Amino acid sequence: MKGIAHYNEGEQVNHYLLVKSSSKGLTSGGKPFLTLILQDQTGDIEGKLWDSSPQDEHDFIPDTMVKVEGDITTFRGKNQLRIKGIRLVTSNDQVKKADLVMSAPLSVNTMLDKVTQYIFEIKNPAIQRITRALLKKHQDAFFEFPAAVRNHHEYVSGLAYHVVSMLNLAKGVAGLYPSLDTDLLYAGIILHDMGKVTELSGATAASYTLEGKLLGHISIMVNEIAETAKEIGVDGEEVVILQHMVLSHHSKPEWGSPKPPLVKEAEILHMLDNLDAKMNMMDRALEKAKPGDFTERLFALDNRTLYRPQFESKLPVE
Amino acid sequence: MKGIAHYNEGEQVNHYLLVKSSSKGLTSGGKPFLTLILQDQTGDIEGKLWDSSPQDEHDFIPDTMVKVEGDITTFRGKNQLRIKGIRLVTSNDQVKKADLVMSAPLSVNTMLDKVTQYIFEIKNPAIQRITRALLKKHQDAFFEFPAAVRNHHEYVSGLAYHVVSMLNLAKGVAGLYPSLDTDLLYAGIILHDMGKVTELSGATAASYTLEGKLLGHISIMVNEIAETAKEIGVDGEEVVILQHMVLSHHSKPEWGSPKPPLVKEAEILHMLDNLDAKMNMMDRALEKAKPGDFTERLFALDNRTLYRPQFESKLPVE
Amino acid sequence: MKGIAHYNEGEQVNHYLLVKSSSKGLTSGGKPFLTLILQDQTGDIEGKLWDSSPQDEHDFIPDTMVKVEGDITTFRGKNQLRIKGIRLVTSNDQVKKADLVMSAPLSVNTMLDKVTQYIFEIKNPAIQRITRALLKKHQDAFFEFPAAVRNHHEYVSGLAYHVVSMLNLAKGVAGLYPSLDTDLLYAGIILHDMGKVTELSGATAASYTLEGKLLGHISIMVNEIAETAKEIGVDGEEVVILQHMVLSHHSKPEWGSPKPPLVKEAEILHMLDNLDAKMNMMDRALEKAKPGDFTERLFALDNRTLYRPQFESKLPVE
Amino acid sequence: MKGIAHYNEGEQVNHYLLVKSSSKGLTSGGKPFLTLILQDQTGDIEGKLWDSSPQDEHDFIPDTMVKVEGDITTFRGKNQLRIKGIRLVTSNDQVKKADLVMSAPLSVNTMLDKVTQYIFEIKNPAIQRITRALLKKHQDAFFEFPAAVRNHHEYVSGLAYHVVSMLNLAKGVAGLYPSLDTDLLYAGIILHDMGKVTELSGATAASYTLEGKLLGHISIMVNEIAETAKEIGVDGEEVVILQHMVLSHHSKPEWGSPKPPLVKEAEILHMLDNLDAKMNMMDRALEKAKPGDFTERLFALDNRTLYRPQFESKLPVE
Amino acid sequence: MKGIAHYNEGEQVNHYLLVKSSSKGLTSGGKPFLTLILQDQTGDIEGKLWDSSPQDEHDFIPDTMVKVEGDITTFRGKNQLRIKGIRLVTSNDQVKKADLVMSAPLSVNTMLDKVTQYIFEIKNPAIQRITRALLKKHQDAFFEFPAAVRNHHEYVSGLAYHVVSMLNLAKGVAGLYPSLDTDLLYAGIILHDMGKVTELSGATAASYTLEGKLLGHISIMVNEIAETAKEIGVDGEEVVILQHMVLSHHSKPEWGSPKPPLVKEAEILHMLDNLDAKMNMMDRALEKAKPGDFTERLFALDNRTLYRPQFESKLPVE
Amino acid sequence: MKGIAHYNEGEQVNHYLLVKSSSKGLTSGGKPFLTLILQDQTGDIEGKLWDSSPQDEHDFIPDTMVKVEGDITTFRGKNQLRIKGIRLVTSNDQVKKADLVMSAPLSVNTMLDKVTQYIFEIKNPAIQRITRALLKKHQDAFFEFPAAVRNHHEYVSGLAYHVVSMLNLAKGVAGLYPSLDTDLLYAGIILHDMGKVTELSGATAASYTLEGKLLGHISIMVNEIAETAKEIGVDGEEVVILQHMVLSHHSKPEWGSPKPPLVKEAEILHMLDNLDAKMNMMDRALEKAKPGDFTERLFALDNRTLYRPQFESKLPVE
Repeated sequence: MKGIAHYNEGEQVNHYLLVKSSSKGLTSGGKPFLTLILQDQTGDIEGKLWDSSPQDEHDFIPDTMVKVEGDITTFRGKNQLRIKGIRLVTSNDQVKKADLVMSAPLSVNTMLDKVTQYIFEIKNPAIQRITRALLKKHQDAFFEFPAAVRNHHEYVSGLAYHVVSMLNLAKGVAGLYPSLDTDLLYAGIILHDMGKVTELSGATAASYTLEGKLLGHISIMVNEIAETAKEIGVDGEEVVILQHMVLSHHSKPEWGSPKPPLVKEAEILHMLDNLDAKMNMMDRALEKAKPGDFTERLFALDNRTLYRPQFESKLPVE
Repeated sequence: MKGIAHYNEGEQVNHYLLVKSSSKGLTSGGKPFLTLILQDQTGDIEGKLWDSSPQDEHDFIPDTMVKVEGDITTFRGKNQLRIKGIRLVTSNDQVKKADLVMSAPLSVNTMLDKVTQYIFEIKNPAIQRITRALLKKHQDAFFEFPAAVRNHHEYVSGLAYHVVSMLNLAKGVAGLYPSLDTDLLYAGIILHDMGKVTELSGATAASYTLEGKLLGHISIMVNEIAETAKEIGVDGEEVVILQHMVLSHHSKPEWGSPKPPLVKEAEILHMLDNLDAKMNMMDRALEKAKPGDFTERLFALDNRTLYRPQFESKLPVE
Repeated sequence: MKGIAHYNEGEQVNHYLLVKSSSKGLTSGGKPFLTLILQDQTGDIEGKLWDSSPQDEHDFIPDTMVKVEGDITTFRGKNQLRIKGIRLVTSNDQVKKADLVMSAPLSVNTMLDKVTQYIFEIKNPAIQRITRALLKKHQDAFFEFPAAVRNHHEYVSGLAYHVVSMLNLAKGVAGLYPSLDTDLLYAGIILHDMGKVTELSGATAASYTLEGKLLGHISIMVNEIAETAKEIGVDGEEVVILQHMVLSHHSKPEWGSPKPPLVKEAEILHMLDNLDAKMNMMDRALEKAKPGDFTERLFALDNRTLYRPQFESKLPVE
Repeated sequence: MKGIAHYNEGEQVNHYLLVKSSSKGLTSGGKPFLTLILQDQTGDIEGKLWDSSPQDEHDFIPDTMVKVEGDITTFRGKNQLRIKGIRLVTSNDQVKKADLVMSAPLSVNTMLDKVTQYIFEIKNPAIQRITRALLKKHQDAFFEFPAAVRNHHEYVSGLAYHVVSMLNLAKGVAGLYPSLDTDLLYAGIILHDMGKVTELSGATAASYTLEGKLLGHISIMVNEIAETAKEIGVDGEEVVILQHMVLSHHSKPEWGSPKPPLVKEAEILHMLDNLDAKMNMMDRALEKAKPGDFTERLFALDNRTLYRPQFESKLPVE
Repeated sequence: MKGIAHYNEGEQVNHYLLVKSSSKGLTSGGKPFLTLILQDQTGDIEGKLWDSSPQDEHDFIPDTMVKVEGDITTFRGKNQLRIKGIRLVTSNDQVKKADLVMSAPLSVNTMLDKVTQYIFEIKNPAIQRITRALLKKHQDAFFEFPAAVRNHHEYVSGLAYHVVSMLNLAKGVAGLYPSLDTDLLYAGIILHDMGKVTELSGATAASYTLEGKLLGHISIMVNEIAETAKEIGVDGEEVVILQHMVLSHHSKPEWGSPKPPLVKEAEILHMLDNLDAKMNMMDRALEKAKPGDFTERLFALDNRTLYRPQFESKLPVE
Repeated sequence: MKGIAHYNEGEQVNHYLLVKSSSKGLTSGGKPFLTLILQDQTGDIEGKLWDSSPQDEHDFIPDTMVKVEGDITTFRGKNQLRIKGIRLVTSNDQVKKADLVMSAPLSVNTMLDKVTQYIFEIKNPAIQRITRALLKKHQDAFFEFPAAVRNHHEYVSGLAYHVVSMLNLAKGVAGLYPSLDTDLLYAGIILHDMGKVTELSGATAASYTLEGKLLGHISIMVNEIAETAKEIGVDGEEVVILQHMVLSHHSKPEWGSPKPPLVKEAEILHMLDNLDAKMNMMDRALEKAKPGDFTERLFALDNRTLYRPQFESKLPVE
């Protein structure tokens, strides 16, 4: 079956989809309608359910699966779905949530092997043990959660995929700058966003938890490093420096780090995080633009709109 | 014996003093000299030791007691001490460090009673138990450390004195705004700067520890609240909210809080902290100015210089 | 009769209300409608009058009383009123504007007594006479005007209520910090926002006057202090310092004060103003949120949304 | 006699000079010396009086005339005066302060005629009367004071000269943009900096008064316009708009204007003020640089250093 | 025939107009419509074409001429046009684009004479030859293009009109400040915005070209000065300084100039550019406001709204 | 012979050195002295020549070779050289400037091969030809100049070494993100700082040229790309995009780029530039710190001071 991202204006849709978000509006004539963001593995689309009932509001909430019939229209250059029929999925439909969500291009097992291999390469025993213990504690969520609610790697297993990309990047960079301490760098990469498994509500249709809102993933993880080190009987400067790497990885106070990077590997961790996240955002935006066109405005890139040259010979790869 | 703060230009000094800081300079003719900040209970003075030897550099380091002879001169309106003789204190001198340091106007016991009394008024058992346990863990240092290295309450027991002042202020304010949750407010005040006992090196001539520089007192304390709660078997929203109050008490990212206050009592905690700290800074600066004059520039008050009106009838009180 | 703030979705309204603001819109089909903010003593509600006529536009302007029939609907979690019938109030209705506006929880007489008492406590004759003369000049408006058009104390007598709260707060704080000059502080509090009686158009449905827009309440009051002092034959440093306290009470240039506070009591005036205003905003926002929920975004608090803990035992009080 | 600005390294000086400022220093060997800024009509020079006595400190204070002997040396490309002999001027010396100060290139009478002529061209009677009355009140000081303590027009009669230049500029600009209201523009120019006569201490060696520091020349003048209008029985919108023009002439809060220009002529007033002040600063800095060189850093021009092209055919004129 | 700017609510329109921009919307009921900005020589109006077809979207694109029938309505105080009939202009209509666009108040020939005269006054041969050569290269576009897409002089020949106004202004200012090098100033004015002929797509309904977006008119012109100088065999400091004047004419990095003005005439060029542009914006906004009213918010003037005094005797002139 | 970086306090020096900078001072007793920065291949040292003569000032200017005798002293933890004898180098000394300057760790030939190889890998003929032509034009200077006057790669051939490091980095990154257009990236890296050969005065003791100060290396190179493309007959989008990559490589206006990166490879170019420059700065600062210590403050890293962990097993490599 064709994915939701691949329809064109005027086509008919009859499709299983997952509700990503739902909000109620009133027409200028005062009638209620629902705006649903609906997704499958290929992407998402904004759907309009006109003349919605209170029952509709109650049923079609985030993270529920639905069967939808409708027409594709366009608005401001984007596809929209005019919903003509919608119902909740039942057990008879035999559709699983995993069929309806985007996920990382690598399998969980592949990524687990990769991360395990990098941990194995960490020689400093204190650093290795802390990293291993924390990964073990959060292993399931770590390989399922997205890296963010929006902007970059915001899909199932996005967090782990982002970490694996950064680890590969770190290995390449450390090959060119041999003074880099790869123990610190690999451990810092694996731990830097692990607090997201507490900050976010789940792997799909994620929102922020109370701890996420009041403390944030950085403080959450800085805490856990201290706690875990104590539990497994590790102390010494390595603990403080790992905490510092997580604490400072957003680089500036106004971006969420109360201390700037004060250790070389912390600075590099920040730069690699930034490089991989921006590459992901740019590739996905450029994929949707034709050669010779500009992308839509990218909020997380200071609202820039990027140009896709006409002469490029290679296609952006997701 | 007259305190070091009370000498005038031209007088002779023969005095026990504590070295607060020491730095080496070269005269424009290329000769070494030491600039020592020397203190007793009444204040401190900059001393110059001309033609200093390597042995002098080695001996007169921060937190050592010395016997000094010299003359008072003035420079840019401030007293200076031209050191003619200086030696380390020996056991024969029978002088104790406590005799040479400024400290809070209340005794440790008085402040301990006060803080204990406020903890007793906390009704929520989770909040009370966490606060009590943390105070117990750090009790000695908490009642001895300064509140800061400079700017406000930077003397022995300054931290506890700042906390007691804020608790009294909180009680007064809560009397006028009955919606305030005094459990949260009292606990937040007691814990907000407790991380300073780890951030700073000691009660006198304090500098920053490695943990202080790489993590900061806010992150340190946010960690300890989680750890202590776990140790004493407390969980629930109270833990997260106490962590949040400490995390947010500097109010803005650029002032060191990765999250702004998102709970009413956290906002009020920030305001009372600010009020008490500024009052302390302003009183001490105005005390040194005569009516009709401006104070020196106050770095921590955006470099302002304050005016002391001529008509005031009350004297600033320290 | 039930207040407008206490209706639920689906209920019928038949109610006297005061028009707070009115603006015309066009439906996407090109038809005119009016959006009216309508209030009584309990709060306000957005009303939609569909298919409005030019006569409607002409009649239902700010500060007029109307009789309204309609249904309560909801939109984005807020109540809306779909107006089915609306007419101007006539003398037969026997309804007074005072019945339809929110006002301070204390009576004008109580507040007048309070302020008079505080003026009586001012010992410096120059400060007392200026304060008394200015209060006398603006007495009626001072006890009727709101403290602001929006954000805090934006109701009848809000200005005086804000001043009384600050005076009580100042008395408490001065009890703990005896170096504070209460003469300056009380006078500064009474005068700091008095220019609002010229900056704003009236006690209800207030907007900005030309002087308000071109000069602002701070400059207006700084002028009046000089003028009044001259009229009653007072001169000396007290005049300049009172002017300075008003001039600097917003603390920073970008908040409207061309000079920062350079006198201790001016700094404290700013802080108490801030504390009382924020307490008012926070209490009112939290009152509308349930325990465990976040408030709506609060523009005047840097767009924060505040959390109301689940465990609180006390209710916010307005 | 050659002016102090025209000596070269190695020459002997024997000269009457005015002390502009005086500050005490200590050599690195601990000996006191005075740094005096000394001026005559051609400019100023930094003088060093080594081994100064307390009597010297007492005598050689700002705004006193002295007779000085010494040698010209250079330091960082600037002349310095090594003082070998210095004494106070006595009545026998027959030297007047006016002989030792820089002043505007036009005489007071010429400038008075010019300003009077422009006032005469103001047609609106309210605007004309207020302007005339204020000029009369401050006439002597207005034609003697500098426009600032430093940066631009900081010499005797600098304020009036700056005003006359701006008036001529305004006439030219209004000729090209006939919609400009010259009544407002001329009055605004004459009044915009008149508050300096209260903000500054005098015509020579000026410092800030208490009113200057606590209120500033803008607030001072905004007050006086209101007061004067009342005294001469003028009211109406003209008063508010003249106040607004003075209030807003620094254009931005962070530059001292609590309101930005909201009337066209207020915006133009700001621009002409800026243009004349910068032209004065740039001309004087470039005059000291040779073609092909850069000037010293100019603090009031964002610390820029300006280039003087090699090919220019015209010399900068002061 | 009455111009489109002069209709009132309720009147019928039957008019030739030029499409300035076109965008598609959806009604809240999901039906497509077009919002067209339509202009003639007197101004522009927003038109709504309800129930638009794909053919309409295809036909009514920017820079096409149309014949329109409809009614004038109002929304938020602005006229709107409800389109009842619209068709493309054909050759039978005998209407030219020049009849439908606003243009500068001076003819191209008059402006060409003026600019030529100023070039003739440039005495330095290098500066004169470069300016002349560049004007020749871009002569047609230079006298046809607008000075900007919006905000100021955004009409046919707006660029040349802006340049002529600035040249007249420069002549007046240089008369008062004789140290100004008019060769540099006149050349800088003529060249400063000439890059717009490459940055923008055309004289009417202009948008940004790829070079405009990726390089900007400043870099484009800095390049062309170097290239042209080489072509005509001119070198020396004059080339670098002309490049610098164009490079720095926006004054600050955040306004598009990588270097601030470092030559006096560059600073004055910036100020005159600013003065003429703001005068144009202010006059046009004030023309639409009645005495005693405020204008709409002006984005390019920091979102200010300007007051038009009641007492003014002169009308704003465009 | 031991390099100047390897002496300790108290040792005697008798050494050939190159003058990097020279400035005159006055002792507080009024006597002239010279402060010389003197270098050899191992680093530089500040030397003091007391009681200097006008002849000394004339002789010991930047980029001259000298023979120096003196003693090593220390000041604020840094070595200083007290000069006892100094003379200019003559032909008899048989010392070459190349013996006294730091230079890149790779030879010019090695780097030339590397860059040539990368150009060879560029497949797009337009991009390759422009890059090749520009390298040929500036080849000698390109392989000799430093990358900057201070902060990073500020030694002979530093520019080419920085480019080679970035090319290697780009190859590694492009291997992991196959959507990157290596043609653009390699060309952008080779050209991004090539304008420095015009901005700076030479390979050693470099200062800024007039073009450097008034235009900057970015504008200079953007010009040259256009010019060179025209000369070799290349046009098309490639030219504009290469210009854009150079123009935007500082990323933000306040860092010198009038346009932000709007092409993916331009963004990546900025990030790799930043990564290589910071790595160079950090490695060199950490090399001078002992494990467990902090470095001196690093101006170009926001004034941070970096910590060198105690447990690191690898040494920083230059």
